[in-house]
Amino acid sequence: MKAEILSIGTELLLGQITDTNAQWLAEQLPALGIDLFFISQVGDNRGRLVETLRKAWERSDFIICTGGLGPTDDDLTREAISDLMGEEMVVQYNYAETLREYFNKRGVIMPEKNIKQATLIASAQFLENPIGTAPGWWVQKGEKIIVAMPGVPHEMKQMWETQARTRLKPLLPGGIIVSKTLKVLGKGESVVEEMVKELISSNNPTMATYAKPDGVHLRITAKAADEETARSYIFEAEMKSRNLLGTLIYGEDSETIEGVVGEMLTDRNFTLAVMESGTGGTVSALLSEAPNSVQFFRGGMVSQQRSMLAGWGVDSNMVETYGIMSKEVAEAMASAARHQMGAEAGLAVCASPGPGEFEGKPGGHIIIAVDLDGSLKSSDLYYRTKPAEVKRLSAVLSLNLLRHALLK
Amino acid sequence: MKAEILSIGTELLLGQITDTNAQWLAEQLPALGIDLFFISQVGDNRGRLVETLRKAWERSDFIICTGGLGPTDDDLTREAISDLMGEEMVVQYNYAETLREYFNKRGVIMPEKNIKQATLIASAQFLENPIGTAPGWWVQKGEKIIVAMPGVPHEMKQMWETQARTRLKPLLPGGIIVSKTLKVLGKGESVVEEMVKELISSNNPTMATYAKPDGVHLRITAKAADEETARSYIFEAEMKSRNLLGTLIYGEDSETIEGVVGEMLTDRNFTLAVMESGTGGTVSALLSEAPNSVQFFRGGMVSQQRSMLAGWGVDSNMVETYGIMSKEVAEAMASAARHQMGAEAGLAVCASPGPGEFEGKPGGHIIIAVDLDGSLKSSDLYYRTKPAEVKRLSAVLSLNLLRHALLK
Repeated sequence: MKAEILSIGTELLLGQITDTNAQWLAEQLPALGIDLFFISQVGDNRGRLVETLRKAWERSDFIICTGGLGPTDDDLTREAISDLMGEEMVVQYNYAETLREYFNKRGVIMPEKNIKQATLIASAQFLENPIGTAPGWWVQKGEKIIVAMPGVPHEMKQMWETQARTRLKPLLPGGIIVSKTLKVLGKGESVVEEMVKELISSNNPTMATYAKPDGVHLRITAKAADEETARSYIFEAEMKSRNLLGTLIYGEDSETIEGVVGEMLTDRNFTLAVMESGTGGTVSALLSEAPNSVQFFRGGMVSQQRSMLAGWGVDSNMVETYGIMSKEVAEAMASAARHQMGAEAGLAVCASPGPGEFEGKPGGHIIIAVDLDGSLKSSDLYYRTKPAEVKRLSAVLSLNLLRHALLK
Repeated sequence: MKAEILSIGTELLLGQITDTNAQWLAEQLPALGIDLFFISQVGDNRGRLVETLRKAWERSDFIICTGGLGPTDDDLTREAISDLMGEEMVVQYNYAETLREYFNKRGVIMPEKNIKQATLIASAQFLENPIGTAPGWWVQKGEKIIVAMPGVPHEMKQMWETQARTRLKPLLPGGIIVSKTLKVLGKGESVVEEMVKELISSNNPTMATYAKPDGVHLRITAKAADEETARSYIFEAEMKSRNLLGTLIYGEDSETIEGVVGEMLTDRNFTLAVMESGTGGTVSALLSEAPNSVQFFRGGMVSQQRSMLAGWGVDSNMVETYGIMSKEVAEAMASAARHQMGAEAGLAVCASPGPGEFEGKPGGHIIIAVDLDGSLKSSDLYYRTKPAEVKRLSAVLSLNLLRHALLK
């Protein structure tokens, strides 16, 4: 099945918003075995919208539209589909009532122009929208399908997952596609790819690596007549990958490094305290994303000033001698964090994010240290990248160092 | 001039990356008086690429391509433009030498396939790329122009700003366009729009509001024969806006809330200390983005645990009585931060980011407090939005509260 995505709205052409809907939808399609060949963004202009839809209708089997389903004169997706189909929009009185109720419940009288959200053409059916006023359209004619969904991301995602995808599945050619992602930290994408080289050439399951903010993702995708067989292919490839990558793998699918470390800590009944310099609290921010962070995360102390670190129990002579950007001070900070906040584990990060130097070190220099119940471990790293990236790396790599310390 | 953007790369169709290049470029065009009617994403497929280029060539005057300029067989932008033009790609030996030197300087011998980055067609000229191996193409034939630039965002942006835009400007219809942005915090977009309603209807300068992560942006754009006249139009509209919005405006153009607050603090020779709960260090993170944060930002303490706050000098009886999510505790935290870290200004944020409750309050509840040299001020806010947004709002709105306290 050949698919095409159309994102509709003049705000996209003015650069006011990024089209995250298209990316999200594009990511959903491979697992359904649908090939996506084109994405287009077009403004709220009936002529250009019909032109783009017509081209898509000619060359694709399945068109996914987002946006342009609001009640105003600028919202022209329904009108454009009607033009393309040569069918007239007709008000559906039952649906109009539902819409009126939606407004009444919120203590508002429905503006009359909203009535166009209750229209259909002969080839269209509604896709319900329980969290907004704009229902979607499912348009089917011959072998071809158009799905029109709202542009508001959470309305669109819910409509796709609960309605559009369900209607689509029976129409797809047989076979089940299942995928699983293994997540790796500590090596770059090309190194990981090299390590699993022998598996990457396989046709079923296929394997591919992706560089992501939380490490390298290794995605295994298997195709089979039934789910059990597909899963057995994946299982085999996963075992081989785990043999090759060992403890470099920190998690799978929706698992996160902060979640994994949080679970390891709570399993051991440990709490964690953090001290950071140069990262502005990025490590604490990531830790606070862990589902059970209230339980295990005591807190974080953040400062780039030498006198503050001394006030927090880091030996000021040591800071003067080695400077903040040193293994000695990072280790002392990890211990100080542990003692100041009464935790079993202390984590410290000192980073020079750049641009320019911090404590005499060029941007990209990162020092991380762990104090696990008195046992120290540290690491000195350098990445030539931009400030936001240095901070992000500081956070994920320091949590990964803590993970390795906890594995022992 | 009618423009169209083409973003090229199969990774866009697989949803592996978001097309931020198209948005960035779309934002550049209005100020040049260029209308953008279409954006398309297309994969690394020669046939489909030529098809999309041909359609764009028919309907637009100016086509901006990004991506597909690398050295591999998958990089097909040059080939597709050659097909469209019916012109042959010819190696430019001078440029090939430049490329070889680029590799030599890095101690690497240039792979032979990179030679295609040194090719041109008769209608094309190079756009140099001092920070990568892929030069761009400037293709001009009749009244129409194609600009092809690399997909790597920072290479593309530099090439656009230093080369493509410079070549483009003399070809644009006369007149200078100048714009200026005023930045507002404390009111939503619709309220700000309502407040400056009388100005929004003006034709020259035009005014428009944009909801952005750091508040509402009010962009004033003026057109005139020369820059001085355009600037005088903007000056007049800016004065009127400042009359209407007063201290709601915190900055202009590239100014940031953290930079503005940082400057106010350093002007007064004040330092700042922060204590946060529920935000995971977002306030500290934003403050550390201020250019001179090392000078004025003493540090931040972050915890969601009651016992930690008590350890940091917040009265534990008060925490037990009112809970963390209270004005009483937020004010006590602002004072405790100030005293613990020896600063003139203390800032505290307590937020329930959601999903779910924090300290008995639903997600979206934010309490911010300032202690400026002993004088307290606090604010209790509620936003029905997602966790990342609650944290971001906590940071910008707390800095805005501090700004207002410093204004007095």
